[in-house]
This record gives sequence, C-alpha cells and structure tokens, in this order.
Amino acid sequence: MANQKSSTDNNPQENTWQIGPRTLPPPAGASEEMRAAIAETPQPDPATMQIEPQSEAEWFAVIAQMDEGKVDVVHDLSEQFLISIEQEKIEGINVYQVTPAEGSPAQGSSVRLRAWRSLRPQRWRGGSGRTYHNRPSVQDAGTISIDYRMPPRYPTPAGRDDVVTVYQQLLKQQPAQSMALGGTSGGGNLVMATVQRLIELDLDVPGALYLGTPGTDMSKTSDSWYINEGIDRLITSYDGFVEAASWLYAGGRDLKDPLVSPLYGNVHGFPPTFLVTGTRDALLSNTARTHIKLRQAGVVADILVYEGVSHGDYIVVMDSPESLHAFAELNAFLLKHLQ
Amino acid sequence: MANQKSSTDNNPQENTWQIGPRTLPPPAGASEEMRAAIAETPQPDPATMQIEPQSEAEWFAVIAQMDEGKVDVVHDLSEQFLISIEQEKIEGINVYQVTPAEGSPAQGSSVRLRAWRSLRPQRWRGGSGRTYHNRPSVQDAGTISIDYRMPPRYPTPAGRDDVVTVYQQLLKQQPAQSMALGGTSGGGNLVMATVQRLIELDLDVPGALYLGTPGTDMSKTSDSWYINEGIDRLITSYDGFVEAASWLYAGGRDLKDPLVSPLYGNVHGFPPTFLVTGTRDALLSNTARTHIKLRQAGVVADILVYEGVSHGDYIVVMDSPESLHAFAELNAFLLKHLQ
Repeated sequence: MANQKSSTDNNPQENTWQIGPRTLPPPAGASEEMRAAIAETPQPDPATMQIEPQSEAEWFAVIAQMDEGKVDVVHDLSEQFLISIEQEKIEGINVYQVTPAEGSPAQGSSVRLRAWRSLRPQRWRGGSGRTYHNRPSVQDAGTISIDYRMPPRYPTPAGRDDVVTVYQQLLKQQPAQSMALGGTSGGGNLVMATVQRLIELDLDVPGALYLGTPGTDMSKTSDSWYINEGIDRLITSYDGFVEAASWLYAGGRDLKDPLVSPLYGNVHGFPPTFLVTGTRDALLSNTARTHIKLRQAGVVADILVYEGVSHGDYIVVMDSPESLHAFAELNAFLLKHLQ
Repeated sequence: MANQKSSTDNNPQENTWQIGPRTLPPPAGASEEMRAAIAETPQPDPATMQIEPQSEAEWFAVIAQMDEGKVDVVHDLSEQFLISIEQEKIEGINVYQVTPAEGSPAQGSSVRLRAWRSLRPQRWRGGSGRTYHNRPSVQDAGTISIDYRMPPRYPTPAGRDDVVTVYQQLLKQQPAQSMALGGTSGGGNLVMATVQRLIELDLDVPGALYLGTPGTDMSKTSDSWYINEGIDRLITSYDGFVEAASWLYAGGRDLKDPLVSPLYGNVHGFPPTFLVTGTRDALLSNTARTHIKLRQAGVVADILVYEGVSHGDYIVVMDSPESLHAFAELNAFLLKHLQ
C-alpha cells in the first residue's frame, strides 16, 4: 500500500543534500548506564525495518511476534514494584486498572508511571495510548490503561473514540482537572487526537498531558526521519514498516489528515503538556515541532531532550539516570498542574 | 596545536558505528522562510572548516576576514530599528550601550534583543559574550555589549574576568535581580563561566540568563558534533577550525577544564535560564546537555528546539517565524523572571 501514495511532500526542484558517511561513537555525554546500553547495541540497520505485511494475517503475525515475551515483562515489573493490575470493562471497552499496593515503591515516587507505561508495550499498530487518573494526588493515583481498538481491523479514529468514551465515563466520577492523559510514540499521537476531539465536543480537557517522543506526524516530513536514520537504535528507519503501519492506521485518509497526524490539527485550548525526546530519536523533530506548535498557541509546554537517547530509550534503559530524571520531572509536572 | 592533544575521550574498545550516506531534503516542517533559506544554501562541506591558523598573524587575518561587512550590518540594523549605539568605557573595558530611540519598534517588543545580538557578530575566537541590563522593565531596557578580551592574545579566563568586572560596576547602580546576562555560541560559554565565577565570589547572580546554542563543551564529546556534521549549514564540522579555536581559547588547559568548558563546572545556584537550538544544530547536544544539567540541579530552565535550524539560524534568518517566536519567548521569559 505504501507504494501507491507519497508519504512525503518534498519538492524535487529543491536542493536535496547528499550527506556523506560518518563514524558515531557511543555518546560520551550520556550517563554511564545509557552509554553502556548503546555501546552494547549492534549498529542499527535500516534494512531490518523493510517489513511490509501484505494481508491482515501477515499483520497479526508481526504483531504476535512483537508482543512475544512482553506479558512476562509486565508480570515481572508488577511484582518488582508491588503493583496490582486488574482487568475491567468501561462501556464495553477493555481497560487495565493499575494500582500500587501498600509499601510499593510506586507510592510517593515516580516509579508508578514507569510501571504504568510498561503495561501495554508498543505494538506498531499506528497508535497506542494510556490514560490515568489521580485521586487525590499523583502519588497514590490509580492508572487506567485503555485497550483501545487498533489496526489492522480498526484504523483511525476508532482508538481515539474508545479513549474519549472511557474519559467521558471517568468525568462522571471526578473533575477533568484531576486527570492526566499520556502516551508514548503512537500513544502520544492518540493523546493529541483525543484532546482535539474533546475540544470539538466542548468537553473539559484533562489537567495535563504527557507526550513521550510522540508520533504526531505520520508522514515522512520531519527532519529527524532523515538525519537519525540508522542512528536511532530502536526505530532505525521510516521506510518500510513505519510507512506501511502509517498507511494502515490512516485507513484511506491522507497521512497529513489531523486524524492520522494530529500535529496538523488544532492545539488551541490544550492543557499543560510535558514532552520527552533525545538527540538520536528518529522522532526528535516530531517532538520538537509539537512542542513549538503548542508554545506558539500559548500552551504551557515543557520539553526534555536527552543526550544519545533513541526513540523511547528512557523507558528501555529504565534504571538509567535519564529515565529516573524524566519520570521525576513528569511527576513534578503533574503535581504542579493537576488539581 | 590540535594535533598534540586529543579533544575526545572516546574509548576505541567501544562500539563505534559506521553511519551510511543519506539524502536530506530542506525541512518541510520548518517555516517557509526558514526552509527557503536552507533550500538556497549550497550543501555544507566539512572541508571548508579545515582551517587551522598557525600564528597570531594568521589568526588575526582569519578574524578580519570574518568581521568583514559586519560593521555595515550593525549600522543598517541600528537605522532600521531606530537604535543608538554609544561606545563607553567601564573600568577601562570597552562597552557599547545600545538604546532604542523614541518610536523604535524595539520599544515594547522583542526586536531590541535581536539588534542587541547583532551588535557584535561572532568571530570564532573561542568565546563571545554580551550582557544587558534593564530599567525598569525589559521593554525600555538598555543593553550593554561588552568588548571583552579574546584569543589569540587572551585565552580563558580573561574574557570572563572582563564581564565580571563590568557586572560588578553595574551592581553598584541596580540590583542583580533586575539584570539578565546572555550570549550566543561562544557567548553562551562565557555567560555560564561568568555565573560560575559570580557564585565562587559570593556575588548575587543576575535575575535570568539566555544561552543561545551555547558552546559550553569545547571538546568533541557531544553527539551532535558527529550526527550533524555536514548537516548544520553554519558550523559544518568540529574538526579543523573549531577544534583549533578551542585549543587557542584553552591556552594550555584541558578542553574539559570548566574554565574552557563550563558544562563540566558547577550549576547549583544558577538563575532561570532560557536556551535555544535546532534539529540541525551542531551544538544541539551542547544545548540539550546544558539544559538537562541545569534541570537536574533544580534550576528553572526552558529549551526551545526549532525544526531544521542550524547553529544560530534564528539570528541569521531574522524575519523567520522561528526567529520572531524565539525572541518573543525570550522577552516573556525575562519579563517573568527579572525584577
């Protein structure tokens, strides 16, 4: 499907540069832990991203492969941090209620959010999202992770509509200002699309947002898709799988339709937003462009850029100072802006 | 001189990656003005940076070449923005007092700061700095640009000492909290080194700082020296001139001595700091590492990362939305934090 449409709008008349090869040592300016993890990584190879599933069955096979072992990871994390995970239904939508138990290090710390993030690993289906609410403060908050509909069966905006449905139910129990909405990568896309929908519907927006290296522009527009190709160790190229997944998620829409790429939609009226990225992140530009657009609209928005960090590395090298700092900052941001 | 010492501390045992060639179109996610300026730029060639002056006379010749035409630029800008520039002496140090005249668009807007920045164009001498003070608000502020000592005659910390001297004189006229200290590139280095010195001397620090794509680490440590080589259109490589200028500025010190690279020094007690960079900036990592280090020390620090922007592009393409936004944000930041 990727071959039938253009995912870029580059003008061939323009001055495209041919950038030469270079050597890249592990980032000496990153923490020891982050540098060690990067130094142990084989050189990223964009060719490994050249996977383009051709049928629903092939997509499900790829998804199953990517999910492999992740349930065990979540189980181990929940034991490590004394966190209970309960499956529930809200308006027929599958959700997971994540609650730190008595004595959990997630109580009174930022660890909770990290466990929360790990509950539903990213599965490359063009969007992944989580929502969480707090009562009465972030420290002893519960988190609700929403199992929203995704491709290949459900392109945009099905997932967004599920998040809006759950959010509306939560609104009956507590004020919008007490809730935060957050997600990483495709999840950041969904958070942005959800808030745009809430504003359209004239509903109260959450008190704060978290966008971790968000996939807010699914076209190959951003500078860092080009610059960090083969440099980001976690998402080595746009070409191939990411492009195919973007078209799958679009379901016939243009890649710059705000329902596919919410960066092209409205951001006026957005709540305070916290963003995280890194210098090797293939989505550095997406994150930076989202941050600047929010600021230009007068939204309170704060971005952290970590040295040497690839797409989502701060939730991969979880004991690194970068990860600990990012989540401590996120926690402080939420405490400041949630009521 | 660059050949006698190592400017990197990369471990050859570590896994250095060989990054392949790539194409890079003009950044479609930047403003039209910024994209047009980049599209008109010939492909950056790191070979043009392979200049290593071998004597004082050769250094002065390079400096004269780089200064050429800049006096006219400053003159034109001062007429355009109705700004008067008066040369003065403070404790024997040459300074320029920059004052917006009646009816100047620099009154009540951020334009003043842009004119201020252009007063002393960067001259590749390992450090360049400016200081400005306000009375009683940023809008009708005067700016003092300090003609501090520089290499090749004066390595670090001569320039810093001149800034400290001028600052101490200004402190007799007005409170520290009413003053801001700012600089771009090498000027950002000097601002950081100056504040470290003020803290050592137990003097009150300014109310706010501005670090535009600061050269706070003069060694080749930062990721973006490698990643954005030949991609940054304004500073295409560390190797050659930048490395030679760094050793010149160091005057026999190690490149990681805080007097050469203040990123390795203390940042506790720093005032609120505003930083600007871009995705193509060879100093993206320097700026991001400085921002994170400040935040980790509990300092209020805000970073803006503009799509497609090279080292200091926001003061080159001065009518671009990126430049206008950066200076509007800087102005708001100063108004918020200065007293």
